[in-house]
Amino acid sequence: MTVELICVGTEILLGSIVNTNAAYLAEQCAGLGLSCYFQTVVGDNEERLTQVLQMGMERSDIIILSGGLGPTEDDLTKEVAAKVCGKELQLHKPSKKAIEKFFAHRGMEPTDNNWKQAMLPKDAIVMENHNGTAPGVIIETKLCKLILLPGPPNELRPMFEESVAPYLEQLTNQVICSKTVKICGVGESKAETMVKDLIDIQENPTIATYAKTGEVHIRVTANGEDKKAALKLIKPVVKELKSRFGNDIYSTEETCTLEKAVADLLIANGLTVTLAESCTGGLLSARLVNVPGISDVYKMGVVTYSNKAKRRLLGVKKGTLQKYGAVSVQTAEEMAKGAAVSFKADVAVAVTGIAGPDGGTEEKPVGLVYIACCVKGRTVVKECRFSGNRDKVREAAVSAALTLLRRCILEYYSEVTFGK
Amino acid sequence: MTVELICVGTEILLGSIVNTNAAYLAEQCAGLGLSCYFQTVVGDNEERLTQVLQMGMERSDIIILSGGLGPTEDDLTKEVAAKVCGKELQLHKPSKKAIEKFFAHRGMEPTDNNWKQAMLPKDAIVMENHNGTAPGVIIETKLCKLILLPGPPNELRPMFEESVAPYLEQLTNQVICSKTVKICGVGESKAETMVKDLIDIQENPTIATYAKTGEVHIRVTANGEDKKAALKLIKPVVKELKSRFGNDIYSTEETCTLEKAVADLLIANGLTVTLAESCTGGLLSARLVNVPGISDVYKMGVVTYSNKAKRRLLGVKKGTLQKYGAVSVQTAEEMAKGAAVSFKADVAVAVTGIAGPDGGTEEKPVGLVYIACCVKGRTVVKECRFSGNRDKVREAAVSAALTLLRRCILEYYSEVTFGK
Repeated sequence: MTVELICVGTEILLGSIVNTNAAYLAEQCAGLGLSCYFQTVVGDNEERLTQVLQMGMERSDIIILSGGLGPTEDDLTKEVAAKVCGKELQLHKPSKKAIEKFFAHRGMEPTDNNWKQAMLPKDAIVMENHNGTAPGVIIETKLCKLILLPGPPNELRPMFEESVAPYLEQLTNQVICSKTVKICGVGESKAETMVKDLIDIQENPTIATYAKTGEVHIRVTANGEDKKAALKLIKPVVKELKSRFGNDIYSTEETCTLEKAVADLLIANGLTVTLAESCTGGLLSARLVNVPGISDVYKMGVVTYSNKAKRRLLGVKKGTLQKYGAVSVQTAEEMAKGAAVSFKADVAVAVTGIAGPDGGTEEKPVGLVYIACCVKGRTVVKECRFSGNRDKVREAAVSAALTLLRRCILEYYSEVTFGK
Repeated sequence: MTVELICVGTEILLGSIVNTNAAYLAEQCAGLGLSCYFQTVVGDNEERLTQVLQMGMERSDIIILSGGLGPTEDDLTKEVAAKVCGKELQLHKPSKKAIEKFFAHRGMEPTDNNWKQAMLPKDAIVMENHNGTAPGVIIETKLCKLILLPGPPNELRPMFEESVAPYLEQLTNQVICSKTVKICGVGESKAETMVKDLIDIQENPTIATYAKTGEVHIRVTANGEDKKAALKLIKPVVKELKSRFGNDIYSTEETCTLEKAVADLLIANGLTVTLAESCTGGLLSARLVNVPGISDVYKMGVVTYSNKAKRRLLGVKKGTLQKYGAVSVQTAEEMAKGAAVSFKADVAVAVTGIAGPDGGTEEKPVGLVYIACCVKGRTVVKECRFSGNRDKVREAAVSAALTLLRRCILEYYSEVTFGK
């Protein structure tokens, strides 16, 4: 089955916002085994929206529209979709009640405009919106199914997961399941080479690789007549991937991030952690703090940008800085050891490097970063050479630091070994 | 004149990458005074790309295509565009030389594939690529101008600025200039209300507002027969905006960010700065470190997540934490003052708040953040109530902290006053 995305909004056409809804919906649809060949962005304009919609209905089985369900006169996605499908709009009482409740809960009065959001196409399937006032709508015609979702991502995403995904599964009359194997510390091209033979013979399940900064995700998607059958097809492939990538796999859970995996390891082993950052300037800390509950193990960290700060807060020796420089194995090691001691933490990670654009030399070019990790006195230092601009170097350094931290904890506790 | 964007790439259709090229190109085109009514994403597929291209040529004056100019067989944007326009591909010698040079510079050998990138449509305008091997191409037909750009943003953006923007200006036979007035500390709806009368009567120049986290950008765009004429039209509008928004305008420079404006203020006044972060967990520091050269004034900062860290590193009193809690005016104030003293900085900023999802109470809900700024002993504390999830709250807090820091420095040195 084919699906097509139509995102409605002048802000996207003007470039005021990046179209993250399209990326989200595309990834979800791919995960459900649907083929997506077209994405279109169009403004809140009746003529052009009609044109795009009619064309989409001719060439795709399913159209997902996002945006233009708001209460103002500009918003006309629902009106145009109903017209194209030959459906009248009528008052949908449960939606009117939900809007009343939404406003009452916030101690506010709905405006006259808001009732427009309860006018829905006749015979449509209505999807509740728990995070806003615009209900979602599915219009079924002989040609095509139209799925209308509100534009704000915090309304669109939960509605997709709660209502659209089950609808699409029922539509394909098959249950589609997927499992994502998340890998850190292995380059994209190496990972692709390692699974090329599996991708070449793929059919059901399918295998797709997604490159992220410092990570590779491999998604295995299968369809079956029920969930059990689909999962049964996925299981041996995931097992095969586990045997190929071993300890470089940090999770197979959909919602788990690398920082979450690291946080879980720290918490499970009762380890407190501290961070000493130079070139990443707080970015590593901010990433770890993404994880709710991290405060159980992460109490404090420092950004030591200057040599003086490295000496004063971390106890790095003057002689080390003079002899080897701030960006060196020796300084990174002393930073990590010093942080662990100063801040009484079981584990410390230190990052020092040259993020650019200036400060690089032939011997120590922009992109050179040293990461040190100290687990209960045992310290490992890794040298990295990243390419790209200041932002890229810093993001890559943060991922590499989390990867090294994870690896050092695993090696300390279970004597597991890594390929490199 | 109308422009339409066609982004070619399977990664976008699969949702593996977010289409930031479309947002960039859309914003640039809007800045050049072009109207964009459609954006389409299509895969590397001859039939579907042909279909999208033919339709675009019928309805738009200019089409900008991005992606699909790579050396592999999959890449067929140039081939399809040439075919649709009835142009043959032929070897373009300067491009062949440029590719040779590109590889020689890196000490690498080009592969046979690479020569495909020097095969360009007959009579096309060729745009040099200083950051990769795929030259850009402009094909002019009676109906429409097609502009083909490489997909990687670090190749597309410089090529747009160097070659495409001047071409489009010459095409419209007018010079289009724009100036962006960047405002912090004023809400989006308030800013819009403050300029509504100007927007209602706009013609040349046009005025558009763009909401960013904690900021509003107002872009004034004018066209004239030459640059001088266009700038002359812009000048009085910018002057009017300056009189309306006063000190809340942090810059009118295209490349200036809020953190850059703050860094410039610190450097100009010879002020060293330190940061003490709780809920933002390093994000404020990472934002400031975005500015190259910040190391002249920013030497060190701390993330004090636990109460103990606030006491030990910043000297916050035990009694203050017990009586008022970690999220309070009093704690924020002691954090900022303590950081300034401990780390011997002229200026200190402290952030403490509840980012969520847990930890909120009726009295202190998720989103409550206190920001304190101490400039040479004079401390101001601001209470903020942000909405949204953990990420949104933290991002909003970082922008608010930079805004407060800027304001406190201005107030200290020039006795300027702010509206609120």
